[in-house]
Amino acid sequence: MPPPKKRAETSSNPNHPYPEVQVTGIAVIPEVGKGDDLALLISEAARRQGTPIKKGDVVVVTQKVVSKAEGRVILLKRVKPSPLAVSIARQHGKDPRHVEAVLRESRRIVRMDHGVIIAETRHGFICANAGVDASNLPDEESVCLLPKDPDGSARGIREGIERRLGVEIAVIITDTFGRPWREGFTNVAVGVSGLDALLDYRGTSDAYGHPLKVTVMAQADEIASAASLVCQKTTGVPVAIVRGFGYKRARGKARDLVREPSLDLFR
Amino acid sequence: MPPPKKRAETSSNPNHPYPEVQVTGIAVIPEVGKGDDLALLISEAARRQGTPIKKGDVVVVTQKVVSKAEGRVILLKRVKPSPLAVSIARQHGKDPRHVEAVLRESRRIVRMDHGVIIAETRHGFICANAGVDASNLPDEESVCLLPKDPDGSARGIREGIERRLGVEIAVIITDTFGRPWREGFTNVAVGVSGLDALLDYRGTSDAYGHPLKVTVMAQADEIASAASLVCQKTTGVPVAIVRGFGYKRARGKARDLVREPSLDLFR
Repeated sequence: MPPPKKRAETSSNPNHPYPEVQVTGIAVIPEVGKGDDLALLISEAARRQGTPIKKGDVVVVTQKVVSKAEGRVILLKRVKPSPLAVSIARQHGKDPRHVEAVLRESRRIVRMDHGVIIAETRHGFICANAGVDASNLPDEESVCLLPKDPDGSARGIREGIERRLGVEIAVIITDTFGRPWREGFTNVAVGVSGLDALLDYRGTSDAYGHPLKVTVMAQADEIASAASLVCQKTTGVPVAIVRGFGYKRARGKARDLVREPSLDLFR
Repeated sequence: MPPPKKRAETSSNPNHPYPEVQVTGIAVIPEVGKGDDLALLISEAARRQGTPIKKGDVVVVTQKVVSKAEGRVILLKRVKPSPLAVSIARQHGKDPRHVEAVLRESRRIVRMDHGVIIAETRHGFICANAGVDASNLPDEESVCLLPKDPDGSARGIREGIERRLGVEIAVIITDTFGRPWREGFTNVAVGVSGLDALLDYRGTSDAYGHPLKVTVMAQADEIASAASLVCQKTTGVPVAIVRGFGYKRARGKARDLVREPSLDLFR
């Protein structure tokens, strides 16, 4: 078994002529609270468990710990539901305070049916409950909101780790979203820093030298899904290191993943 | 660096207390043609490059090579477009023979706009051009269709590899699909054998012991996306081995990923 250290680009290396990516869960993050320095906590946890962050790694962080560090957790007893929230909650069997939190995070309600509220967040993401979520919080009477500026949060964590360790990396912040037509949630990127969210193949050729047609891959979402294989919901592993994916350093952001409303056939 | 061999479940092992998944591209598949034995080709290619398939691996195979092996490539000169196909092609600047192939693979047209045909395939998948694709084919005057029964194709490859190597594995067949609301394509599962497509957390607890609410993860799609990190479109790496993902052996299928029309808010 060769050492899984090189980038995918080194597939031209005759000693290692195939691409290989390694996804490692960082299990030992202590309980995160408001004001905590995630760059410090993640760097230290990775070092302590014997898998320190290295140049070229993509550090993938679950939204929940970012929101906790940024104080984006609200106690439901502090939320006064509007008459609309009370009415919606009654129709759908929900907590009116939770519904109120969802409405406050939304800039548009896309669908409301089958007990599900699909909303567009102020960042432009379309997801259930505008990303407001009650799981993995110490207090059951609280809910967690998405970071205010997840791309900015990703940049802050990236710069913090880079300053601390002196290596260039990328950071992706993830959340689990549902989607039309297909069952099951998948992990997607809500914040990106240090690489492009989209990998654009237009103008390149396929393996036969023909021009590729359809060809913008959502690489940040695919990295988010890869991280999900080690960051499962029940394990308390909120961070993963994705190593060996040969990306180009770039100023991408998760907002690039939001389709222009005028080009979207399904709004 | 510890040997990346164990399953994610062994995170209770004090010598290796974190989950780790390895994704390895299998680069050396020779040109696949109709009637080829993919189980043989994949097993041999993995062995030759020094990364043989092992018990518990998920072998992820790009749809294109499966379709080629199954003879699901058609020459456009053999396709006689219907008047509807000619009319659609004219409106959208497409090849009428390609449109005809798309219509034959569709059981419903979901949207037709912005030069894109979103169709429901006879398997129930909703995707651009009903999965009919012209890239990565030796002859530019041909198109590739999805396998007739991709879950059956996955089962055939799984059983072939298991018989040959005497180890239990799982197989996922992938394609790249677009999605509403978010830019970029992601790799998803169109065929599954040997594990569940959906990972159902309902009835389990989060890291704080609270019951999880939203909680069916599309694990087959997340594995497909992880494989995409090494199977990029331009590299000619049509197969990946995902190792270390602790799944339960089960009789899942990709059709489980298709949402019941009556529960879908976006058809």
